[in-house]
Amino acid sequence: MAERGIISHIRKQFSNQNPRLFMGIGDDCALFGNQSSNPWMISTDMLVNDIHFNLLWHDPYRLGRKSISVNISDIAAMGGVPQFVLLNLCLPDNVAITWVEDMLRGVSDICRQFGCELIGGDTVSGKELSLSVTVIGTSDGVKPVKRSGAQSGDLIYVSGFLGSAALGLELFQRDPDSTDLTPFHYAHLDPLAQVNLGRELAQQEIVSAMQDISDGIATDLAHLCFESGVGARIYEHMLPMQEGFSALCTKLGLDSTALQLKGGEDYQLVFSVPQNKRACLEDMLDKGFSCTQIGTIETGEGVVLVREDGRKEDISYQGYEHA
Amino acid sequence: MAERGIISHIRKQFSNQNPRLFMGIGDDCALFGNQSSNPWMISTDMLVNDIHFNLLWHDPYRLGRKSISVNISDIAAMGGVPQFVLLNLCLPDNVAITWVEDMLRGVSDICRQFGCELIGGDTVSGKELSLSVTVIGTSDGVKPVKRSGAQSGDLIYVSGFLGSAALGLELFQRDPDSTDLTPFHYAHLDPLAQVNLGRELAQQEIVSAMQDISDGIATDLAHLCFESGVGARIYEHMLPMQEGFSALCTKLGLDSTALQLKGGEDYQLVFSVPQNKRACLEDMLDKGFSCTQIGTIETGEGVVLVREDGRKEDISYQGYEHA
Repeated sequence: MAERGIISHIRKQFSNQNPRLFMGIGDDCALFGNQSSNPWMISTDMLVNDIHFNLLWHDPYRLGRKSISVNISDIAAMGGVPQFVLLNLCLPDNVAITWVEDMLRGVSDICRQFGCELIGGDTVSGKELSLSVTVIGTSDGVKPVKRSGAQSGDLIYVSGFLGSAALGLELFQRDPDSTDLTPFHYAHLDPLAQVNLGRELAQQEIVSAMQDISDGIATDLAHLCFESGVGARIYEHMLPMQEGFSALCTKLGLDSTALQLKGGEDYQLVFSVPQNKRACLEDMLDKGFSCTQIGTIETGEGVVLVREDGRKEDISYQGYEHA
Repeated sequence: MAERGIISHIRKQFSNQNPRLFMGIGDDCALFGNQSSNPWMISTDMLVNDIHFNLLWHDPYRLGRKSISVNISDIAAMGGVPQFVLLNLCLPDNVAITWVEDMLRGVSDICRQFGCELIGGDTVSGKELSLSVTVIGTSDGVKPVKRSGAQSGDLIYVSGFLGSAALGLELFQRDPDSTDLTPFHYAHLDPLAQVNLGRELAQQEIVSAMQDISDGIATDLAHLCFESGVGARIYEHMLPMQEGFSALCTKLGLDSTALQLKGGEDYQLVFSVPQNKRACLEDMLDKGFSCTQIGTIETGEGVVLVREDGRKEDISYQGYEHA
């Protein structure tokens, strides 16, 4: 039973009738609170050893950081400000105290970096190392950006680069003992949630829909399109890649476009911008945010990739599935 | 590294400086919100196969219910009203779809029973079945009851019975195929969180401190005493037991007092009542809540059990540790 199947099953059973609930299952975060104009945001994720991380190359400090970052990224995707973190740990008996201490130091540092506090959690024994993290953010009076507002004609942007984290993972898989770490290795080990960008986009009301890129743009943009009731067309030649990405892919015999579309874990943002907000966005980007247009929202459904040679391909939901 | 060690380690690293945080790590729930007079409550727990439950006797429907109940119990322990649930699932490949459906039906039913909505979660693959649940409650304008308010001279009460769930677990361990299930079996499979009682006690401002009984009164009362800076004396002959409990323990050769003190998982409430509120409490109990005085709060520290023969014994933190 794939995750989408289970989520859809769950979604049907719950009706969102609580007046304090403003958005249930189906976006980066759920929204709740006493005032709809100032909701709290909440998101949760589970990371399991050998599925979501590999202890051969993921040091505990950066794993602690990443476990929190991937959730903070969901808050960023709605334009919120992360506030509180809860951490559940399942620890096998053979995990050393120093490993736990280093991991918690990573948690502590990333929380401090984003102004969050760890306010709860549970620690249990088990055969398999896993971390389950819940992050709460505040909208602080700014209207949260949902996945569902994209309209035909809007421009599609992504922040940063696509595929860097996926290339980093490839590099570790080929050489788990890598010590000469490249920016791609670090993109995989310690992604940076785009909180400032998400916040600025929400505050200035520039974007019609937004979400974070965790499973690859092929899947994440398909979610955004589904929730908005639209389709998307993106262009291979517009996908932003980090310096050295293409050369390294060639050297390793990797399909660079596949990594960019399906790799996942970049924790960048993908968002749609109505054409009449384009100038506002460009003003904002001049302040130092790095974002690239990769296509446009269209009528219809699904995500179509236009190859450099003009061929078109439906890539909806073709992103990486961990499980 | 025992759970208390890790929690104390974490607690030291976080300073609770966020003005929206009213209570961090160290109670049944953390408290946060935009107004300190009306905080949200949040609690999280992790249940791992073969540690916290056993699929030999725990059917998926009741496991789904229990995974939520144990968290709702934390909301009850502060006098809150449960509102929202997030559920992370780690599912091995060999888990059947029908198992997941039955488990989710249990989640759905218990949520409906307590007026909660499932608003988020994550589903991942892994080698070990586990559930990680987060529950959010509202104080709805009633001051949350903390663990830290007990004072010397206060009376100590518990709700319901002690040891029933532990006896149920013993029965299943001796005969995993039991089909003729007793109330003790059900106390283990499907505990009922004491939301109405906790709410009434908080609303009427009858109690000085409260927490739920998850790890056995020997441990849970020790937490309450530690946070309040007091000690407790409880009496063996006052410990409330369900009809048939004593006879069954004798028949099975079990130490009934040990089960009552150390067994855990009853998800009843333990609370302290100032002497001048005793009459109010008794009025309330007449409405149909079943609570029993088991001892008194004293100066000093730790939990002392007075045996039927008058011997005294320090039982602090001698409750069941899952791990």
